[in-house]
Amino acid sequence: MYRIAVIPGDGIGTEVVPEGVRCLLAAADAFGFSLDLVEFDFASAAYWEKHGTMLPSDWQPTLEPFDAIFFGAVGWPSVVPDHVSLWGSLLQFRRVFDQYVNLRPCRLLPGVRSPLADRSPGEIDFVVVRENTEGEYSSIGGRIFEGTDRETVLQETVMTRHGVDRVLRFAFEYASRRDARHLTSATKSNGISITMPYWDERVAAMAADYPSVETDKYHIDALAANFVLHPERFDVVVASNLFGDILSDLGPACTGTLGIAPSANINPERRFPSLFEPVHGSAPDIAGQGIANPIGQIWCGAMMLEHLGEEAAAAAVLGAIESALSEERDALTPDLGGTGTTRSLGAAIAGRLAD
Amino acid sequence: MYRIAVIPGDGIGTEVVPEGVRCLLAAADAFGFSLDLVEFDFASAAYWEKHGTMLPSDWQPTLEPFDAIFFGAVGWPSVVPDHVSLWGSLLQFRRVFDQYVNLRPCRLLPGVRSPLADRSPGEIDFVVVRENTEGEYSSIGGRIFEGTDRETVLQETVMTRHGVDRVLRFAFEYASRRDARHLTSATKSNGISITMPYWDERVAAMAADYPSVETDKYHIDALAANFVLHPERFDVVVASNLFGDILSDLGPACTGTLGIAPSANINPERRFPSLFEPVHGSAPDIAGQGIANPIGQIWCGAMMLEHLGEEAAAAAVLGAIESALSEERDALTPDLGGTGTTRSLGAAIAGRLAD
Ligand SMILES: CC(C)[C@H](C(=O)O)[C@@H](O)C(=O)O
Ligand SMILES: CC(C)[C@H](C(=O)O)[C@@H](O)C(=O)O
Repeated sequence: MYRIAVIPGDGIGTEVVPEGVRCLLAAADAFGFSLDLVEFDFASAAYWEKHGTMLPSDWQPTLEPFDAIFFGAVGWPSVVPDHVSLWGSLLQFRRVFDQYVNLRPCRLLPGVRSPLADRSPGEIDFVVVRENTEGEYSSIGGRIFEGTDRETVLQETVMTRHGVDRVLRFAFEYASRRDARHLTSATKSNGISITMPYWDERVAAMAADYPSVETDKYHIDALAANFVLHPERFDVVVASNLFGDILSDLGPACTGTLGIAPSANINPERRFPSLFEPVHGSAPDIAGQGIANPIGQIWCGAMMLEHLGEEAAAAAVLGAIESALSEERDALTPDLGGTGTTRSLGAAIAGRLAD
Repeated sequence: MYRIAVIPGDGIGTEVVPEGVRCLLAAADAFGFSLDLVEFDFASAAYWEKHGTMLPSDWQPTLEPFDAIFFGAVGWPSVVPDHVSLWGSLLQFRRVFDQYVNLRPCRLLPGVRSPLADRSPGEIDFVVVRENTEGEYSSIGGRIFEGTDRETVLQETVMTRHGVDRVLRFAFEYASRRDARHLTSATKSNGISITMPYWDERVAAMAADYPSVETDKYHIDALAANFVLHPERFDVVVASNLFGDILSDLGPACTGTLGIAPSANINPERRFPSLFEPVHGSAPDIAGQGIANPIGQIWCGAMMLEHLGEEAAAAAVLGAIESALSEERDALTPDLGGTGTTRSLGAAIAGRLAD
């Protein structure tokens, strides 16, 4: 029995989360475990409109006892500016629950059209390990001489040995358990001349502990280019908060899966609940139409099950996604070239799990 | 008569610069102007080995009288670490000569294979306008508690109204002179919550002065994804120093032209010489073999001629590049699928200029 906090959030989050839940329940049924799901309405624009905050003051003790958080999407800029809604919810969760690893798989799936020429499933299969609590996403800084010609705005990037080493250790451990055992570090030490040379030093120090992992590094500009030119080169890519953010959108874009990629915000020590959310956002442009692709959310369910130790169930969910993609063309949502709906695709995947 | 400082630098810089010069001289001949070219050996690893610095102490008065700087590539990490060689030369030029605009065209050319599926020449044609003197590339910061578990490293991003507004004004002016009159701003105001909301504010303020320019903004993660998914959407893209760096490598990668893209580091007021350099680096992996593609360097020559007011000559150089690409398949370098050399391709393009 696992206790799961369910937070649909905004926009298509509220449409895809029920399909994610449906598949989780089907997997629980098939594999003989049970889920205690509790839904929350905070971390949404609707909550903000009612309360003037994104979260209740007791959100932390409320969520902390859960084994995991199953999250949809947050952000509705016509009601609340993004930096307010994000810093008031998702970015709080990541920090306060010390989810210092953001794990994002990039995989070419069968039946999904890649924007890259001549690539086939199996050829692209890597994971971005993003630092998730510090780095470029700090709230230290401010403005001086405001409103004048001398106006100057500062923001500090903060890297700590504690913060850098723990995400690197996770990435090296993770890479050492994969077949390719290859780790690429994203840097920019030729231009960002203080924090990034430090990042490189820590990578070199950590690499010495993992002689079985082949390690290389690319500057972020060249790395972004190589995601397009040579995606087959990558296995595990470790990056700072900002670089990881960019790479984990670019990677799924290259595999044509931006709308369906999952992500896991993990506290590896399990002192706090980890959070699972699709890479896509609330998508105001298609929200309310019932056509959002639920695969990202369902794939998040698979990552959550793996994190909880239900590996067989996790693999079954991923298998159900892959087989639905290649065999249930009618159920697919419009973004995949189908005529189905969020629900029909969710039902198709859940159906395969029940079999 | 224009006075040009020629700085080949390192690696393939020393191989492609002579071809760039050859084409510049051919264009001068054909269009009836003359060039006074003076070559310098600094800003190279060889200079570093001899002098222990990247530049002579009088580099500034030496270069300042020139009309432009024609630059190859700098960086040779086996001799001098990149952050030392770059901050000791190229990044000095950009800052001290106040080359606050870095202009980088991304264009799908005939005869060049794009890694994107189903794209044809004409479909992708945009320019990245990168802020080139401040932002994330600041040298403010440092380390504390060094060598201990409490080690903390800080680096400041610095945006000034002066610095942001002038590059935005350039970008809006530039966009207003193009057919599409469309400007996209790269931001990350949902995550980088101090400097990036400021950037957005200045874009909004500047947009009010340019009602004829259609303006939109994308977060950098989504923007990188859209370079791959929908490159046809972009016309002029304006970005901070770091974001512009990433986008101006990713853009040329998407058009298959990473090895041949040019860039212009411009001081629009012409108080200081502007600098023209290919996007590619010194390429230690292929240096010395005589097979580096000289098109980036030659295209830089076209941008330099345009900057100097020789528009017709600039257009002719670009035309010669395009026609060589589609008609002189034998002269092309191996990266373009040919069997030619740096020299054969340079000669082919210069030959077309002479005609
Ligand atoms: C070499 C490096 C410092 C430089 C930069 O980041 O500016 C390069 O990538 C470029 O784009 O000109
Ligand atoms: C919404 C935004 C703050 C967030 C981030 O940049 O971390 C998102 O892009 C992501 O990748 O989860």
